[in-house]
Amino acid sequence: MNKEQLFENIKRKKSFLCVGLDTDIEKIPSHLRQEKEPIFAFNKAIIDATADLCVAYKPNLAFYESLGVEGWIAFEKTVRYIRENYPDQFIIADAKRGDIGNTSEMYAHSFFCHLDLDAVTVAPYMGEDSVKPFLGYPGKWVILLGLTSNKGSHDFQLTTDAEGERLFEKVMRTAQTWASDEQLMFVVGATQGKLFEDVRRIAPRNFLLVPGVGAQGGSLEEVATYGMNSECGLLVNSSRKIIYAAADERFASAAREEALKVQYEMEHLLHSKGIL
Amino acid sequence: MNKEQLFENIKRKKSFLCVGLDTDIEKIPSHLRQEKEPIFAFNKAIIDATADLCVAYKPNLAFYESLGVEGWIAFEKTVRYIRENYPDQFIIADAKRGDIGNTSEMYAHSFFCHLDLDAVTVAPYMGEDSVKPFLGYPGKWVILLGLTSNKGSHDFQLTTDAEGERLFEKVMRTAQTWASDEQLMFVVGATQGKLFEDVRRIAPRNFLLVPGVGAQGGSLEEVATYGMNSECGLLVNSSRKIIYAAADERFASAAREEALKVQYEMEHLLHSKGIL
Repeated sequence: MNKEQLFENIKRKKSFLCVGLDTDIEKIPSHLRQEKEPIFAFNKAIIDATADLCVAYKPNLAFYESLGVEGWIAFEKTVRYIRENYPDQFIIADAKRGDIGNTSEMYAHSFFCHLDLDAVTVAPYMGEDSVKPFLGYPGKWVILLGLTSNKGSHDFQLTTDAEGERLFEKVMRTAQTWASDEQLMFVVGATQGKLFEDVRRIAPRNFLLVPGVGAQGGSLEEVATYGMNSECGLLVNSSRKIIYAAADERFASAAREEALKVQYEMEHLLHSKGIL
Repeated sequence: MNKEQLFENIKRKKSFLCVGLDTDIEKIPSHLRQEKEPIFAFNKAIIDATADLCVAYKPNLAFYESLGVEGWIAFEKTVRYIRENYPDQFIIADAKRGDIGNTSEMYAHSFFCHLDLDAVTVAPYMGEDSVKPFLGYPGKWVILLGLTSNKGSHDFQLTTDAEGERLFEKVMRTAQTWASDEQLMFVVGATQGKLFEDVRRIAPRNFLLVPGVGAQGGSLEEVATYGMNSECGLLVNSSRKIIYAAADERFASAAREEALKVQYEMEHLLHSKGIL
């Protein structure tokens, strides 16, 4: 999916919501645990209940890998289910990969050829040759960690170098010499507040994938105020607050209600920014 | 496995070799591709041919994930095969993970409980709370990326901050406030030459996992000269040069010959450093 298509979907659906499929076998409703494929059954119900309210899904690989082979099967089935039934969805593998060139190439092949995902999150620490292999697939995206939503983001990402540039700024500035905003997004945590202004100074046109709204406490309004650009430029992710909105048999309709609240707020924000 | 046991294994086997199981379906001998489980068949033969010459195995997750479910099965079978048949081997999941706390916890559970691996490689960009969950398992290790072997390591890892400290130094110094050298190793690429002296100034006692000897061109002698400490303190990895030493039916014996050459050089280096 290219940037224009993504923006069109955002306008049509009046939403820039990404639903994070951080599906934890310990947290899904107990009645689903009797099913043959409980993780997929949960995901399918969540997807069917939310697909008209969001523009992207983001399965977090850790949750699937923690179950070994069974989890990997559930991950693949989930991706295929979205691809076949909701072809307008942007599917992100939240994998935070990044390795030497030949290894990154294996990951890229896995995510973009074997599974036909739209994007993968990548960690920047190993530099250009760890990221470049992911950029060799037209229409596929790298979402590079910029300024993350967690407390530990302060440990290294805010370190100022001898030229006065913070590490996340250097990462975002340097990465733009590797790829255009048609293939490169950045992860910027919703908890970073006014730092979104600094992010937009460095990356005015790139889409930002924004985790940290909801369970992690970030404010959607603040993110839109400081982070939205003329093409929206935001995919705001919510995982736990939506998918675990209820722990009983009405989990899917509860997830829908929660997603609807977020979509409603997003519609308002898109209006107030003149995008709708 | 604790540090003392690892050092004992190194002295007993006169080797600090780690064999990297970067098994690529495209590169294994063609006669194996007829087998039902070609990746596992290849790994089993390589392991049986090299286990007395090395102290560690390092499957690189990317190579397995690129094959989807089938690859994940091969990865698990390989780890279980080593665990059951060669219990003195230190098994490293080369995964380069690192995510927000609850996600890193899922990975840690996957690698240390579900699979009983000894160590996992972790990326430092997201800071303390992305690494800490891996440290909650006694006898299990985090191997944090410090100074990697690839060209892109210069993009960010060598950036000097306002206090004159380079990023890899800050990472290695800071991480030592999170864990002792009984649970924390660092990745330092063999291609970094004299920078090993700087690494040892910051981390005199930590084991270093050293990729980049062999196909990537690093020198084993240089690594030992600048990086070895009184407990050896090195696990030097070689992947492609050993496992793809021959592409025909004698691939396993060719791998053994290559591993034997490295072990022989390591024995000499351990002697010359007074460890043997």
